[in-house]
Amino acid sequence: MRILVINGPNLNFLGIREKAVYGTEDYAYLVRLLTDKAEKEGHELEIFQSNSEGEIIDRIQEAYHTKAEGLIINPGAFTHYSYAIRDALASLEIPKIEVHISNVHKREDFRHTSVTAPVCTGQIVGLGLQGYVLAMDYLTDNIFIKNG
Amino acid sequence: MRILVINGPNLNFLGIREKAVYGTEDYAYLVRLLTDKAEKEGHELEIFQSNSEGEIIDRIQEAYHTKAEGLIINPGAFTHYSYAIRDALASLEIPKIEVHISNVHKREDFRHTSVTAPVCTGQIVGLGLQGYVLAMDYLTDNIFIKNG
Amino acid sequence: MRILVINGPNLNFLGIREKAVYGTEDYAYLVRLLTDKAEKEGHELEIFQSNSEGEIIDRIQEAYHTKAEGLIINPGAFTHYSYAIRDALASLEIPKIEVHISNVHKREDFRHTSVTAPVCTGQIVGLGLQGYVLAMDYLTDNIFIKNG
Amino acid sequence: MRILVINGPNLNFLGIREKAVYGTEDYAYLVRLLTDKAEKEGHELEIFQSNSEGEIIDRIQEAYHTKAEGLIINPGAFTHYSYAIRDALASLEIPKIEVHISNVHKREDFRHTSVTAPVCTGQIVGLGLQGYVLAMDYLTDNIFIKNG
Amino acid sequence: MRILVINGPNLNFLGIREKAVYGTEDYAYLVRLLTDKAEKEGHELEIFQSNSEGEIIDRIQEAYHTKAEGLIINPGAFTHYSYAIRDALASLEIPKIEVHISNVHKREDFRHTSVTAPVCTGQIVGLGLQGYVLAMDYLTDNIFIKNG
Amino acid sequence: MRILVINGPNLNFLGIREKAVYGTEDYAYLVRLLTDKAEKEGHELEIFQSNSEGEIIDRIQEAYHTKAEGLIINPGAFTHYSYAIRDALASLEIPKIEVHISNVHKREDFRHTSVTAPVCTGQIVGLGLQGYVLAMDYLTDNIFIKNG
Amino acid sequence: MRILVINGPNLNFLGIREKAVYGTEDYAYLVRLLTDKAEKEGHELEIFQSNSEGEIIDRIQEAYHTKAEGLIINPGAFTHYSYAIRDALASLEIPKIEVHISNVHKREDFRHTSVTAPVCTGQIVGLGLQGYVLAMDYLTDNIFIKNG
Amino acid sequence: MRILVINGPNLNFLGIREKAVYGTEDYAYLVRLLTDKAEKEGHELEIFQSNSEGEIIDRIQEAYHTKAEGLIINPGAFTHYSYAIRDALASLEIPKIEVHISNVHKREDFRHTSVTAPVCTGQIVGLGLQGYVLAMDYLTDNIFIKNG
Amino acid sequence: MRILVINGPNLNFLGIREKAVYGTEDYAYLVRLLTDKAEKEGHELEIFQSNSEGEIIDRIQEAYHTKAEGLIINPGAFTHYSYAIRDALASLEIPKIEVHISNVHKREDFRHTSVTAPVCTGQIVGLGLQGYVLAMDYLTDNIFIKNG
Amino acid sequence: MRILVINGPNLNFLGIREKAVYGTEDYAYLVRLLTDKAEKEGHELEIFQSNSEGEIIDRIQEAYHTKAEGLIINPGAFTHYSYAIRDALASLEIPKIEVHISNVHKREDFRHTSVTAPVCTGQIVGLGLQGYVLAMDYLTDNIFIKNG
Amino acid sequence: MRILVINGPNLNFLGIREKAVYGTEDYAYLVRLLTDKAEKEGHELEIFQSNSEGEIIDRIQEAYHTKAEGLIINPGAFTHYSYAIRDALASLEIPKIEVHISNVHKREDFRHTSVTAPVCTGQIVGLGLQGYVLAMDYLTDNIFIKNG
Amino acid sequence: MRILVINGPNLNFLGIREKAVYGTEDYAYLVRLLTDKAEKEGHELEIFQSNSEGEIIDRIQEAYHTKAEGLIINPGAFTHYSYAIRDALASLEIPKIEVHISNVHKREDFRHTSVTAPVCTGQIVGLGLQGYVLAMDYLTDNIFIKNG
Repeated sequence: MRILVINGPNLNFLGIREKAVYGTEDYAYLVRLLTDKAEKEGHELEIFQSNSEGEIIDRIQEAYHTKAEGLIINPGAFTHYSYAIRDALASLEIPKIEVHISNVHKREDFRHTSVTAPVCTGQIVGLGLQGYVLAMDYLTDNIFIKNG
Repeated sequence: MRILVINGPNLNFLGIREKAVYGTEDYAYLVRLLTDKAEKEGHELEIFQSNSEGEIIDRIQEAYHTKAEGLIINPGAFTHYSYAIRDALASLEIPKIEVHISNVHKREDFRHTSVTAPVCTGQIVGLGLQGYVLAMDYLTDNIFIKNG
Repeated sequence: MRILVINGPNLNFLGIREKAVYGTEDYAYLVRLLTDKAEKEGHELEIFQSNSEGEIIDRIQEAYHTKAEGLIINPGAFTHYSYAIRDALASLEIPKIEVHISNVHKREDFRHTSVTAPVCTGQIVGLGLQGYVLAMDYLTDNIFIKNG
Repeated sequence: MRILVINGPNLNFLGIREKAVYGTEDYAYLVRLLTDKAEKEGHELEIFQSNSEGEIIDRIQEAYHTKAEGLIINPGAFTHYSYAIRDALASLEIPKIEVHISNVHKREDFRHTSVTAPVCTGQIVGLGLQGYVLAMDYLTDNIFIKNG
Repeated sequence: MRILVINGPNLNFLGIREKAVYGTEDYAYLVRLLTDKAEKEGHELEIFQSNSEGEIIDRIQEAYHTKAEGLIINPGAFTHYSYAIRDALASLEIPKIEVHISNVHKREDFRHTSVTAPVCTGQIVGLGLQGYVLAMDYLTDNIFIKNG
Repeated sequence: MRILVINGPNLNFLGIREKAVYGTEDYAYLVRLLTDKAEKEGHELEIFQSNSEGEIIDRIQEAYHTKAEGLIINPGAFTHYSYAIRDALASLEIPKIEVHISNVHKREDFRHTSVTAPVCTGQIVGLGLQGYVLAMDYLTDNIFIKNG
Repeated sequence: MRILVINGPNLNFLGIREKAVYGTEDYAYLVRLLTDKAEKEGHELEIFQSNSEGEIIDRIQEAYHTKAEGLIINPGAFTHYSYAIRDALASLEIPKIEVHISNVHKREDFRHTSVTAPVCTGQIVGLGLQGYVLAMDYLTDNIFIKNG
Repeated sequence: MRILVINGPNLNFLGIREKAVYGTEDYAYLVRLLTDKAEKEGHELEIFQSNSEGEIIDRIQEAYHTKAEGLIINPGAFTHYSYAIRDALASLEIPKIEVHISNVHKREDFRHTSVTAPVCTGQIVGLGLQGYVLAMDYLTDNIFIKNG
Repeated sequence: MRILVINGPNLNFLGIREKAVYGTEDYAYLVRLLTDKAEKEGHELEIFQSNSEGEIIDRIQEAYHTKAEGLIINPGAFTHYSYAIRDALASLEIPKIEVHISNVHKREDFRHTSVTAPVCTGQIVGLGLQGYVLAMDYLTDNIFIKNG
Repeated sequence: MRILVINGPNLNFLGIREKAVYGTEDYAYLVRLLTDKAEKEGHELEIFQSNSEGEIIDRIQEAYHTKAEGLIINPGAFTHYSYAIRDALASLEIPKIEVHISNVHKREDFRHTSVTAPVCTGQIVGLGLQGYVLAMDYLTDNIFIKNG
Repeated sequence: MRILVINGPNLNFLGIREKAVYGTEDYAYLVRLLTDKAEKEGHELEIFQSNSEGEIIDRIQEAYHTKAEGLIINPGAFTHYSYAIRDALASLEIPKIEVHISNVHKREDFRHTSVTAPVCTGQIVGLGLQGYVLAMDYLTDNIFIKNG
Repeated sequence: MRILVINGPNLNFLGIREKAVYGTEDYAYLVRLLTDKAEKEGHELEIFQSNSEGEIIDRIQEAYHTKAEGLIINPGAFTHYSYAIRDALASLEIPKIEVHISNVHKREDFRHTSVTAPVCTGQIVGLGLQGYVLAMDYLTDNIFIKNG
């Protein structure tokens, strides 16, 4: 299975920024965690990070052309206002999962709801880096999801 | 590990109510799915369903006394207004995951945000019955969650 | 025809609570009024009252299994916040009429709109106990309603 | 009994406009339905339709002078903003019932509440053309309404 | 001086509608009161009343062509939503005074502010029928208004 | 092609009212401009102006019966509150274009969005009288609009 | 008749502050204007100005004890937030008129409505210094106000 | 004097839940505190706790029938949404005091105001368990309350 | 114990202003009531009333320097907007109780919540003059408040 | 005439994304349509598309330096939040037209109004690809726009 | 140069109130800091502090008469509601700088924006006591401010 | 000291865009002004401008790695919505000052508050280009800022 993971702005600062909220493992750790898992399970995985909204849209559009089969996206702060990324996501008809490392519902300054979630299949929130792992499990193991 | 699964109002009508949204498998199927998994993995699992807010609070309080180690809750419609369940959840200091079968962000008539999510560890939304399965995986397999 | 009438919290205090608003006839009077009418017209009628949201949902679900053909519901104060009763009502595909004895539009402290009305067929408001009578007429006499 | 029925803008397009919502019977059918009923029951009935707010107010004021004994009004779109019709209705101290053919609570683009309902006796919503019939029954048969 | 007085919907029901709020003198009394005063002071006065928004706009436009020198308007309920009357008033560059008989600030159901007041010179509110008299005094006696 | 142009309240005051906003050409100029164009291009054109909401609805309904093929409407101030005109427009299944002479987005006191635009095909805003001309071009020249 | 005129903060800067809005005559001119009028008409008049909310309340309370028969108040900026002055005004059961020199409805930064107006008899707005004069006329000449 | 104390959801978790907010004394301590006081002062006291909205309403209705003379209620989280409990409280015409142990005004996530307070006599907030004691003092010692 | 009681604007008009709401006993009665109680119980009590926000702040600051041990404040209308008094109160780290004579939750025109309550220990509302008495009891008798 | 056309994010996915809304013709078709037209009419046309807000601003600034004479912009999703593009547009004093292919007023999830429209000359909405064509006509044919 | 510094309510409690927010230096330190600087740079400086809104307005008005050349104001809590101080500031046409010691944007309970800032030249926020020093530098050194 | 200055979108159009608001000096002037000052005072200064949100985030992250000691940022329009820049700024624990050339509080179309200010040390607003100069002074001269 061909899976694309997209991480939005400042996720490359994992382990640097707000450790109390996002944990102490750094971005390289996350990349390794997912790469190892994909390798072990025999999936083709690409991980992309950018601080630029435009580059993220470009990458989503590329996924349309290269026929990715599953998408995991943590839009970071773009979650709250990027209707442009939302539109790009809406073009892809593959399973798409929005992941947030921390429990955004606990943080009062992010009271704007997610503008990207309505065009994704679902959302995993607050389960740390394991959220990405569970999202991969969902994408690769569709035995139960016939239930919708 | 001792896990408690709580399902709120109308979840016993799975497979009856709004099949296009919640799928065609019925509640018995969900119970079997989770029970089988728990058995296979050697966990102690209890599944509780009620249409009554008070009974759900009673059951959460009981979990405090009986020392459950992990909680999965789908509060159903109570998600949107039961500050009382929220208070009960806040008493438990174990990992707690809120699960929603459908992607609530797609449904305009549920624009009130979750009042229970802020006191849970995290949330899994829109991944069908597999959401419960992933939540169990999270609870039982804490290898990665040191990352928070 | 098999008709179920559900009355929500405090409706058993008819004739006691706020007589200026709800009239002086008591709950027993209402029960008799509807029972007599059903008997006279040859319908099977059940009247249920509860102060508990959970019991009301249980009763609506039971109506699904016992195949009621028409539902009249006065959700009382639950009108304004019980998304759980709303979900239960949405499971029933029979004609459902929401009745309010007083004209709720006149009372400023109930400015939240009805959360249950959107899943009912229609609503009769402010016509006193006769609202129940008219609702029964609607359910039993469907000659004109082909017009929708 | 002398009853006045007032229909607001576009109700003369019944059976033409949005048939899925308002049904396929046309305005002439509604007029005949009510006229026949009035005749059969021995009531004096007048039905008035206008697309003009001013004419509707004039007609309500005329009802004051001609001493109508009951009023049925479907203000159509004026329901949502005509404080002027509301003021006119408030001048009449006879029973007044607001009727809506469709269940307005189901339609998201009409989220403004009714400005006319607070000055009516009550409201019948979503019961199709039968809503008018039930309103007539309420007006002509006041045996039970002592209960308020 | 040529003065035009425009009264909006339901003002012809003075002395009939809500006497506790608007007083017991009827519309004829108001007409006579202002006519007498105009005559005595040597002004040309026209009083126009209509329940129709369109007719009121027509009358304001006519005042443009017939070169009225002062305008007194009580838009009644149109105060709260008639942007069309507002636009018409904005065409006239003569002194224009909005009059309300009752103190609208005391009535909670009229919390929408006046949409017509911003295009008038000023507003007299809550001083009963004398509000019209004072408005006439303002229009005819401009000795002090150099102060703006 | 049979085209109907409807102009709402105060548009007959073009060249009189707020020239800085609406330009100095008068209403007769607009009528001539469109009439000449229609004649030159061989279309049947009718232009209707009214300050009355009811008359505008009547005219739209008449267009239903007389089978107009295209509609251009500048609802003036009714844009912001006439749900009644909106309902009338919704009855017509021909191409309908809403035109505003000035750029309404620049004017802060018109922050209410258009209630009529959602039932039109599209909207041309801020392009002066040429907005009407372009709307006619759109209606008469449908070569490209297959693109929707 | 004993009349008290209270002017709130910054009204002593008439003729200095924002002349385009409030005119070029200074505060002394206003005092003289009202004093001369009172003298000529045989009324006892006191004019009080303060920039202090507390002093204004003290003065209103004093008017209770000294039995003023009419009150004219221009609360200046306190109009928009002084619930304390509002409470003081509510203690006086004499006729009270709120005066504003400029048309506050034209100024977008004062969108908070008046908190003092609901406890006054009425309000005169936008008629310049003549507003005070008309208020005096209202207070001293109660021939017509039987109409309320 | 016959006094009823009602404690809502999660109050049985006093001393367990959020000790920093609610203190370390447990529910049994509160019961003993009030029971001892009642005994010492010669009053008949009943203390009722439930996590169920319906049971609380039932208990309030029972108090109507058993003629309680004073009511102390801490509705817990129901304070913020239970219009049903509010309706039940409104049926009782005895002195009713709402007590909150912590200062709810300090907690930002409870920004919804109390829906039950408007139908109580008064409210004691933030004074810990002593709030109940003071409420009892108020109920039993009415010497001063003639002042209202 | 040294207790300071501060009463805000218009509380000196107790027994004069809105007797139906605040009772018929006058301010002198309240002073005597509290003074007698303090004397009897051996506390040092000072009562301060002012209509001026600035003087109230000055007095609170003085209490800081003179080391008051407990504060009772009824900020009157300042409750709703005086962030300045709130800041002053926040400087004092002694027990502070906000008292309101009437049940402010019943009065719709005071829908702004208290800005001072969040910096007080607690609040007593709606218990008439006895509210002050109970507040004194709380301050002087801290046996139970260990429970917080 | 030198015209610049700017298309924002995801417009390069025309014919791919949401065909029911945006039509089946692809982006190359749009480019050809406009290029052909410009060539035929003898205008210099440049078409620029980018998913990046920054690149669009750069391009607008370049237009300032290269002295474009007319601008057509479809900001895509940036319409709803890019105050930065709005600022860039405000720098250009040439005619600027905002084009939207679909009728944005029909789509509930785009309820935020356009932040770019207020700094454009006008807007063409909902007329499909022909909207661009009409915008070009407006720019190149200024015969009538003297009317503003 | 003649500079006036005005400090609003509770600023005299610097070093006492909320030291974590406002620092540990007391008010005397601030006075000395600014006085020394003025003396060294040869400016005439006056520093005024009051807890009273009225006195602050009086002082601003005095500055008009005594021809101050620059104003620094920290309105304290009045920032959020004193439209009266705002009006007074608007009378002065000299450079005026609003200073806040702490970063008010970090504090959630002050979400009301500054009502005084729009009538000042600018604002310095969050730079501690040095904010005053920088404001003085701005006022006395106008070499660069030609840029506006 | 190593200082980084970041200017957001359109600031390179200083002297071109809205001169009345931002002054007539161009961007080169600002660069020279700050460079000269840094050179004279012996500081290492870098000035960065970009119209791209992503590039600005990249540059802020680079500052983390290159250990800048102070940051001055004028986010331009990004101030109002770039939660992504806000997150980047939050990663830097050095003094950060947000500068706006004009007084943003005066401009009604920017009513959204700054989303970046809460993560900066402070803000200087409305003092023209001198705002940058004062910010540099703050960063380099920390003698007084012990006061916080």
